[in-house]
Amino acid sequence: MHACAAWVRDRFEGWGLQAQIYPTGGHPVVVARLGVDKAKKTVLIYGHYDVQPPDPLNEWKTAPFEPKVVDGRIYGRGSSDNKGQILAHMLGVAEAWKEEGDLPVNVIFLVEGEEEIGSPHLEQFLREHRSGLQCDVIAISDTGMVAQGCPTLTYGLRGITALEFTVTGPSHDLHSGIFGGAVMNPATAAARLIASLHDAGGRVAIDGFYDAVRPIEDWERQAMKALPEFDAELLEITGSPSLFGEEGFSPMEQIGARPTAEVNGFGAGYQGEGTKTVLPKSAFVKLTFRLVPDQDPEKILDLAEAHLQKNLPPGVKLEITRGHSGAAFLGNPTTGYGKAAAKALESTFGRPPALVREGGSIPIVESFQRIFGVETLLLGLANPDCRAHSPNENFVVENFHAGIRLNRNLLREIGNMGSAG
Amino acid sequence: MHACAAWVRDRFEGWGLQAQIYPTGGHPVVVARLGVDKAKKTVLIYGHYDVQPPDPLNEWKTAPFEPKVVDGRIYGRGSSDNKGQILAHMLGVAEAWKEEGDLPVNVIFLVEGEEEIGSPHLEQFLREHRSGLQCDVIAISDTGMVAQGCPTLTYGLRGITALEFTVTGPSHDLHSGIFGGAVMNPATAAARLIASLHDAGGRVAIDGFYDAVRPIEDWERQAMKALPEFDAELLEITGSPSLFGEEGFSPMEQIGARPTAEVNGFGAGYQGEGTKTVLPKSAFVKLTFRLVPDQDPEKILDLAEAHLQKNLPPGVKLEITRGHSGAAFLGNPTTGYGKAAAKALESTFGRPPALVREGGSIPIVESFQRIFGVETLLLGLANPDCRAHSPNENFVVENFHAGIRLNRNLLREIGNMGSAG
Repeated sequence: MHACAAWVRDRFEGWGLQAQIYPTGGHPVVVARLGVDKAKKTVLIYGHYDVQPPDPLNEWKTAPFEPKVVDGRIYGRGSSDNKGQILAHMLGVAEAWKEEGDLPVNVIFLVEGEEEIGSPHLEQFLREHRSGLQCDVIAISDTGMVAQGCPTLTYGLRGITALEFTVTGPSHDLHSGIFGGAVMNPATAAARLIASLHDAGGRVAIDGFYDAVRPIEDWERQAMKALPEFDAELLEITGSPSLFGEEGFSPMEQIGARPTAEVNGFGAGYQGEGTKTVLPKSAFVKLTFRLVPDQDPEKILDLAEAHLQKNLPPGVKLEITRGHSGAAFLGNPTTGYGKAAAKALESTFGRPPALVREGGSIPIVESFQRIFGVETLLLGLANPDCRAHSPNENFVVENFHAGIRLNRNLLREIGNMGSAG
Repeated sequence: MHACAAWVRDRFEGWGLQAQIYPTGGHPVVVARLGVDKAKKTVLIYGHYDVQPPDPLNEWKTAPFEPKVVDGRIYGRGSSDNKGQILAHMLGVAEAWKEEGDLPVNVIFLVEGEEEIGSPHLEQFLREHRSGLQCDVIAISDTGMVAQGCPTLTYGLRGITALEFTVTGPSHDLHSGIFGGAVMNPATAAARLIASLHDAGGRVAIDGFYDAVRPIEDWERQAMKALPEFDAELLEITGSPSLFGEEGFSPMEQIGARPTAEVNGFGAGYQGEGTKTVLPKSAFVKLTFRLVPDQDPEKILDLAEAHLQKNLPPGVKLEITRGHSGAAFLGNPTTGYGKAAAKALESTFGRPPALVREGGSIPIVESFQRIFGVETLLLGLANPDCRAHSPNENFVVENFHAGIRLNRNLLREIGNMGSAG
C-alpha cells in the first residue's frame, strides 16, 4: 500500500503538482494540488488506489496484477475500480497543465487507500484537513456507465440504514414434540415480522415509511425512458427467474428512486444436514433499508421499530439493535455543477449523458456533503460488464482515453461557470 | 457398550432367564425370555441400556457415572433414562420368579443400546427375529409421570413428518443497493411462506390439514381436567414469556392431541457480526409437523407442498425435500390392555393413573405396531424434574421401588385378561 501511495505521489510530483503522503490510522492518503487562485473555483477529485482482493485466482484468464490489453480492454485488478478511472483524471490534469500552462480551476486530488474497506479513517482525515481541502465541488469517477459509449451522470444515490432484530422465546431450544403447540416458536414469529414488512404488491407496509419520499420528477421519468433497455440486462445480471418490485414503478425507478426494506440474512435453530426437532429459543434477522430523499435514517428506524413492536406475535420478546446509517444523495443535473458535468460528458462522448440515480450508497459522498457542504459529481467510466470486485476485472481502453478528455472538459465547464462561490 | 450389554445379560442369567446378546450393525441387543406357555399371553418389555453423553460435566453436582442417593433421589446419567426404569422391570420379573416360581404371562425382555441415537438398527433386528419376538402386548417405562406420586399412563404419542424447503432467486448474492427493489428477496419470500403456515390464532392454515384429525373425546377432556395444574409448570420449564397455541384448546390438548407445524431452523444470507448488504440468493427452512390420529404423514406432506407452491411469492423458485415420517400412536386406556395397565398403576400407587397423550414421538412404538401388530403400554416412572438428557439426571428411589411392584401388578393384570390372543 505504501509503495502504491508513493507511486501516486511521484506521478503528481513528476508533473509539477505539489503532492504529499499523509499517514492515517490505516493506509495513507495522497493529496496533490495545482493552483491556489482565489478567483477560480476549486475542484476536488477523489479516487482510491486500494483494490479488492483478487481471489479466486484460478478464475482469472490473465494475471490480476500484470495488466494486459485484450480486444480493447485492459484486464487487471483495479483496472476499473478505481486505478484506471482516477489515473484518467490525473492524466487529464497533467496534459492540460503541460499543454496550456494553466488550468481554468484550482485542483485538489485526494487519493485514498481504504475505500474498499469502507474508508474507516477518511472522515477523520477530512475533518482534520478541512481548511486545506475546502473546495467548491467534488468529482468522482468510481461509478458505472449504463452502456458502452453512453456517457452517464449519476446524480442520485440511495441512503441506507440498518437494523437487526432478535426474537426470543423459551430459555433454551425446546423439544418440538414435548412442547410444540403450546408456545410461540421464535422462528415463526420472526418470519411473521418479516412478512409484515411488505404488502403483496411489494410496497413496504411500515406506517409512514413513504411520507418523506420525494416523488420522481417528470424530467426524471423522461430521462429514464430514454435509457437503453434495462429489464433484460437486469434479469441476465441477477439470474433471478423474473423481476419483482413495488407496483407502479419501473425496475430502474425501483432501484434508483424508491426505498426498500431488505432481509440481508437470518438464522434460527438447526441449520445442519437433516432434521433436528427443536423449537429454537431465538431467531435473528438482519435488515437494511435503502433510502431516498428526503427520508431521514433515524426517523425510518423509529418507524420500523414501532412497526415491529406492533406486529410482534404473542408469547415472544423482541430485541432491536440499530446499525449504521447514511442519508441519500440527490444532485440536480439540470442546473449548476450538474449541468456543467452533463455538458462535459456530452462534449466528450458526442451525445448527451444518461442521467441516472443509482441504488447503491457511497457513504463518503454523504461525508463530503456534510463536512464541506458541497455537491459531488459522479461521472462513471466503467462498463456494466467491467467485473469490478470479480475475476477478470477490466476497463475499456477507449473509456480510459475518454476519461482523460472528460477531465479537461469538466474543468473547463466548471471554470466557465464563473468565479469561486 | 459391550460391557453394559454383558452386565444386563448376566443379570438375566443370574436370575435364571434365558438371555443372549445379539450383535447388530451398531450396538448389541440383549434379549431374555421366561416362559413359553402357549396358554399364556406374552408381554415384551422394551428398554435401553445406552444413555446420553454426560456433557457439560462441570454442571453435575455428583459424578455422572458414580450413582449417589441424595434426598431420596439417585443421581447419575441414565438413572431415569432408561437404566433405572428398565431395571425396575427386570427386578420385578426376577422377584416374582424367585418368590412364586411361576409368572402369569410369558415375558420377553428386549434391551437395546441405540435408543438415544434413534434406534437405527432395531427395526431390521425386529424383522429378522419377528417370529421369536412375537408377543401380545409391549410394555415400556421410558416416559414420564405428570407429577410425583401421580401414576401416569401415556396412551397417545404424536407422529411426525419433516419437510425442508429452499427458496432460490438470483444466481448469486446480490448487492442490495445496486439491485434491491427490482427482484424478490428469497429470504423475504421464505419468511412469507412460513407466515402463511398459521393464522393469527395459531391454527395451521394449510388447506385440509385438520381433515383427518380425530376429535378429542369427552372422556379425554375430563381426564385432562383432572390432572395437576400444568400451565404454570409449562411456563417455568420452557422459560417462554407466555403460553401461546391454537385457539380453543388447552396447552395440554395443544401438545398432546393437536397437530403442529414448527420451524426447526432457517438460514439465509449473512449471519456474522454487523451488516453485509447482500440480497441472499437463497433461503432454507426446516419444518416438522407433529401429527395426531388419523393424519397420514405422506398426505400431510402433499398438502404442505401444495400450500407452499400456492403461496410462493413471484420472482423466486421453490425446492422441497421430504424427510422421515412416523405415524401417531393412540391406544385406549379404557378397554383391553390399556385398562389392565391402568389397574396395575392404580394398585401400585394407590390412586387412578393420569391418562395422558404426550406430544413427542417414539418411532419404535410405531415400528412395534407395524411389525408385530400389537399395542404398546407406556408406563412412565420418571418425574417431570428428572433432568433426562441434562446434567444431574435423577430418579426418585420411591419410583424405582414402585416400578418393581408395578411390573408384577401389570403382569398379573394382563394374565387375568385370559389366554393368549
